[in-house]
Amino acid sequence: MLIIAERINAARKRMAAAFAARDAAALQDEARRQAQAGADYIDVNAALSPDAEYDLMAWAVDAVRAATDKPLAVDSANPAAVRAGLQRLPRGSAILNSISGEESRLAAMLPLAAEFQARVIALAMDDSGMPATAADRWRALGKILAATDRAGIPRDRILIDPLVRPVATSPEQAAECLRMIREIRERAGGAGAVVGLSNISFGLPSRRHLNRTFLAMAAAAGLSAAICDPLEPELMAAVLAARCLTGTDAFCMNYILAQRAGKL
Amino acid sequence: MLIIAERINAARKRMAAAFAARDAAALQDEARRQAQAGADYIDVNAALSPDAEYDLMAWAVDAVRAATDKPLAVDSANPAAVRAGLQRLPRGSAILNSISGEESRLAAMLPLAAEFQARVIALAMDDSGMPATAADRWRALGKILAATDRAGIPRDRILIDPLVRPVATSPEQAAECLRMIREIRERAGGAGAVVGLSNISFGLPSRRHLNRTFLAMAAAAGLSAAICDPLEPELMAAVLAARCLTGTDAFCMNYILAQRAGKL
Repeated sequence: MLIIAERINAARKRMAAAFAARDAAALQDEARRQAQAGADYIDVNAALSPDAEYDLMAWAVDAVRAATDKPLAVDSANPAAVRAGLQRLPRGSAILNSISGEESRLAAMLPLAAEFQARVIALAMDDSGMPATAADRWRALGKILAATDRAGIPRDRILIDPLVRPVATSPEQAAECLRMIREIRERAGGAGAVVGLSNISFGLPSRRHLNRTFLAMAAAAGLSAAICDPLEPELMAAVLAARCLTGTDAFCMNYILAQRAGKL
Repeated sequence: MLIIAERINAARKRMAAAFAARDAAALQDEARRQAQAGADYIDVNAALSPDAEYDLMAWAVDAVRAATDKPLAVDSANPAAVRAGLQRLPRGSAILNSISGEESRLAAMLPLAAEFQARVIALAMDDSGMPATAADRWRALGKILAATDRAGIPRDRILIDPLVRPVATSPEQAAECLRMIREIRERAGGAGAVVGLSNISFGLPSRRHLNRTFLAMAAAAGLSAAICDPLEPELMAAVLAARCLTGTDAFCMNYILAQRAGKL
């Protein structure tokens, strides 16, 4: 399971200030700490304001690349900002976060994914809005996967996000999401599943327990990647434990080494 | 998911000393703390030595009952000790922990389960020893469930233990165990699944992360009960979170109340 580290996001208060002040050191500090904590990708979201996003994405990607060797996830709904990010990164290294089945977004984003050989996060929704059932999700995915196939993007470069809904308001959706993760593994031709983890606990107190418990459940269902905060030590302990329990940490060696390094 | 609290066990050093000294206060302290932490059943294992087990079980059950209103799990492979425990408890309240498909154990234990209307933990093994595959487990269960049916024990009074193997030495067995939990829910006619949780982490450091991560996975697979240590606060937080995520904590009210009580 890959960890896509979410902290460099202009929607966070401290990061908004850093973006506004062009404080590269603040972004670089977040990038280094997330990499050190076990991030596999560093997500960069520069959507401080629609006007500034293109320039801020270009600036932020350059800043983060100067601080870490980890690959980046270029996180934007704005095709121009996505291009600004992807064109600064080694071809084939980045994740494009994200596309959906909305026609306009598909048309604008898929050529970029193909041109820069990016992995692609695909949200399981279309122009009809947030999905409620597996059938809704598969309808949107049918459209998306037909389009990615036409654009020549291999299925194993696609991470499908079933769209996690808050358990506080949609209690049945946690199980629905886990079912979708299993179905994606079985039916999406080699595409993986990804979740934006913290959505599950939105609106509840002590969110960290809910986040890491759901992460464990999703890992057992076959999750390929999670967008989350690797600076939560107990969450990363759950990630390391989940890798043992899903058979992706041979002889539990990474777990044992993490314990020796004082990380558990 | 029910929590069967495991700390009153003569195999633990501190408890062995308490059993040997007939220190009722030590057992009662463990019983009260486990009940307070959220135990649904208090397990009592008095197997200090084969000769003394009958007397110690009788003594321990009386001691624990004087300290808590929680129901008990009478934990022994010795039918006489099981009888000593069950006959001191309200009919229909206790768990008999455990039976297996071993012929001699079935013959001795099932009449006790029927007489005292106990819930029964059934280990998915028979005279051929520890199971490796789901087929091995179902072969043993076929024998056990035929016998419990003949003894008139309703399926919904049975908790099947698929027998968790340590992930350190049997990495594929974690997934196998989760698959068995799902199959038990689908194929065992209303019986539930239970695990002895800490077996999963045997032989590894920092076991608590593995235990609670596996608990989350097992909960999502449909686990009915776990034998575990409720005095591990992060484990109980995972239990509370898992109840939200599996839809058994309506409106997450127990989770929210636990947070307000400072338990999360």
